[in-house]
Amino acid sequence: MNAGILGTGTVGRTIGSRLIELGHRVRLGGRSAANERAIAWAASEGERASSGTFGDAAAFGEIVFNCTEGAHSIEALTAAGRGHLAGKVLVDVANPLESGPGRSAPLLFCNNDSLGERIQAAFPEARVVKTLNTMWCGLMVNPRLLGAPHVVYMCGNDAGAKSEVAALLGAFGWRDEEILDLGDIAASRGTEMFLPLWLLLYGRLGTASFNFTIVR
Amino acid sequence: MNAGILGTGTVGRTIGSRLIELGHRVRLGGRSAANERAIAWAASEGERASSGTFGDAAAFGEIVFNCTEGAHSIEALTAAGRGHLAGKVLVDVANPLESGPGRSAPLLFCNNDSLGERIQAAFPEARVVKTLNTMWCGLMVNPRLLGAPHVVYMCGNDAGAKSEVAALLGAFGWRDEEILDLGDIAASRGTEMFLPLWLLLYGRLGTASFNFTIVR
Repeated sequence: MNAGILGTGTVGRTIGSRLIELGHRVRLGGRSAANERAIAWAASEGERASSGTFGDAAAFGEIVFNCTEGAHSIEALTAAGRGHLAGKVLVDVANPLESGPGRSAPLLFCNNDSLGERIQAAFPEARVVKTLNTMWCGLMVNPRLLGAPHVVYMCGNDAGAKSEVAALLGAFGWRDEEILDLGDIAASRGTEMFLPLWLLLYGRLGTASFNFTIVR
Repeated sequence: MNAGILGTGTVGRTIGSRLIELGHRVRLGGRSAANERAIAWAASEGERASSGTFGDAAAFGEIVFNCTEGAHSIEALTAAGRGHLAGKVLVDVANPLESGPGRSAPLLFCNNDSLGERIQAAFPEARVVKTLNTMWCGLMVNPRLLGAPHVVYMCGNDAGAKSEVAALLGAFGWRDEEILDLGDIAASRGTEMFLPLWLLLYGRLGTASFNFTIVR
């Protein structure tokens, strides 16, 4: 499969490297094709990896990942090009934090709104699935780093898109029973609003390598 | 110990009954002393239980629990009387949900604000501890209903008050390692903003009897 990844930060490169490891082809896209981090990443990952602009990555991908900072996601997706997203599964991993991943950064918007919804509304032909945004990226792609079951949320309006994403999560190492479908894209409100608690726990626990098991 | 409970709904009565069971004296307070639910509760719980107004309950308590609906908490605490709260531990269990516990009710305020902070600011002489607001009340007071470890958050500006509350949580059945102090009262933002995700999970899991283990 060809995957386009928007965002050249740690999250984008981590997901990109994992997809390469799983045998896929990945193009990492940034604001500029001259992004040194993306070029270095592609060089280190071998012939199935490449880099370019947001548009290059989105055009390349049969599936597209939004790994940009939430504050700039709509802008990045607009630069990627509406036509390059139409009909494709768009995995939204971002959170609309006001500024970088500070420990107390508030959200830019929430409660009656969410980034997942804004993206789906701005790109109605994309099949947006919000997932993986409630944890450190190391766990997103290697959930078995933790020795116990834990949970990943997923939401979106397109059932087929969610099935495709669930299969990909399975390839990352997630077990079926760990993947919780919370419903349509408006459920992004809940998972994005979890970030302030995550950031507090990150400060309290002194590690980002944690997640949650639901106990019943 | 004498405990005053503000709020005659399920949460207040559940906490009240558990405190009675543990040997304490409890006065349940409502808007009116003629609240039939509170009177019936006191009658059923025996001689260590009583009921009255918000003011009666707050005056009675050496410790006071805010179990009112978050939308009306400041009003209820004002009715309880500033002087009846001064110097006391005030355990805030409420969430500022727009209306009853609907599955998609948004919060009245969040992100840069929280009910815990508003209460502490409005009643500066009370020693506010926010806790227990991230779960069903049955688990608040009987955490061992679940067969695995799970977590309760706590925050507040007064270290001594948090120690007292932690001891009380211990009496409810919480283990030391399950009680996570998230810092000062501003951490209420994080635990209150968790509610939308909790409500989604409540809908998805079909039960309120769930909580989370942190996996590292």
